[in-house]
Amino acid sequence: MRVRNKPWAKEKVAEYPQYIPSDPMAWKGKWQDKFQNKQPIHIEVGTGKGQFITEMAKAHPEINYVGIELQTNVIVIALDKLIEEKLPNLQLLLVNGSMLTEYFAAGEVDQVYLNFSDPWPKKRHEKRRLTSPSFLSNYENILKKNGEIHFKTDNRGLFEYSLASFSQYGMILKQVWLDLHQSDFVGNIMTEYEAKFSAKGQPIYRVEAVFPER
Amino acid sequence: MRVRNKPWAKEKVAEYPQYIPSDPMAWKGKWQDKFQNKQPIHIEVGTGKGQFITEMAKAHPEINYVGIELQTNVIVIALDKLIEEKLPNLQLLLVNGSMLTEYFAAGEVDQVYLNFSDPWPKKRHEKRRLTSPSFLSNYENILKKNGEIHFKTDNRGLFEYSLASFSQYGMILKQVWLDLHQSDFVGNIMTEYEAKFSAKGQPIYRVEAVFPER
Repeated sequence: MRVRNKPWAKEKVAEYPQYIPSDPMAWKGKWQDKFQNKQPIHIEVGTGKGQFITEMAKAHPEINYVGIELQTNVIVIALDKLIEEKLPNLQLLLVNGSMLTEYFAAGEVDQVYLNFSDPWPKKRHEKRRLTSPSFLSNYENILKKNGEIHFKTDNRGLFEYSLASFSQYGMILKQVWLDLHQSDFVGNIMTEYEAKFSAKGQPIYRVEAVFPER
Repeated sequence: MRVRNKPWAKEKVAEYPQYIPSDPMAWKGKWQDKFQNKQPIHIEVGTGKGQFITEMAKAHPEINYVGIELQTNVIVIALDKLIEEKLPNLQLLLVNGSMLTEYFAAGEVDQVYLNFSDPWPKKRHEKRRLTSPSFLSNYENILKKNGEIHFKTDNRGLFEYSLASFSQYGMILKQVWLDLHQSDFVGNIMTEYEAKFSAKGQPIYRVEAVFPER
């Protein structure tokens, strides 16, 4: 996601360590301590401006959410929402999504959300796609047994790639939606991008895939 | 597929046993004898009016094709094409696609094609879908090791169902197309229905899925 550079963003992040931990690696294996309860932990990799994860946290107070975003200029927008809503079950992490095993212990996470991830359409950039095998391996590592990935995108090429990638990795597709907004799916929470994009009438794709027991 | 009743159709089929064997069970395990060569055997379940299988047989003389169709009123249209083209590598079978193991021995078939199968959209008709588990079990039985299903449809619900069904059966998705006619797929041969339908601009879905070694 491209956004204007915000020289003040880094400073603002530093002002809210209660929402964006300044020591993310310190919480590896201890996220339930951080949230001070035993609720399941769902993470979103590439949280962007935070509409999805904020609305999910409001709708599901029985679940703890961690929104992961690499860009300081972007995460501050999510931070603004969290400051306003003061949600006890949502944390943001300003870290690289390819390093998840640095921040979560094996089996610590119950579910992974990927929403409108960068499609990286060029074949030579395949490894950067958040649904490529090395990312899947990291998700599998931090997810509990039979953990799931819930993935939404409007990008046809990325969705085609991801279905095959999940399957070839050994994951099982639980359910597939080829036009989410025309389906009977209940409780969809839209990202900023999704709301804007779907107004044009193009389909939103969605899949729920589960890691096998091995 | 609904077509007009043709009182003469049964008689016509009986006139061409060289194209539509009158003793299909007799060829179980002996299809290469029937074709008098050792070429791989590809079958289409639900061959309809036969455009796909006829064009495939013309394009790929190195493969033997068997088109399977239950309706006499429909298969006679495919028969007309075969009478005209006189293709040595194509046979038609007037039998029920749910009974494949009666007509093919274990491992006798190299590939299964399903094209624009009846979607049977009602949940209570799920078992009639050609991509439901009991059908998959029959395909697996007659396919050689690592045999593949190549499936095309314009029906969103059937495609969503089929991707999940293949995956949950243990099949691996090799590749998925969510808009075949807008893709770089080379060598697509259209069915009658596909040619008509795709002119309306709606997407054609396609998947290649492989049975695992077990």
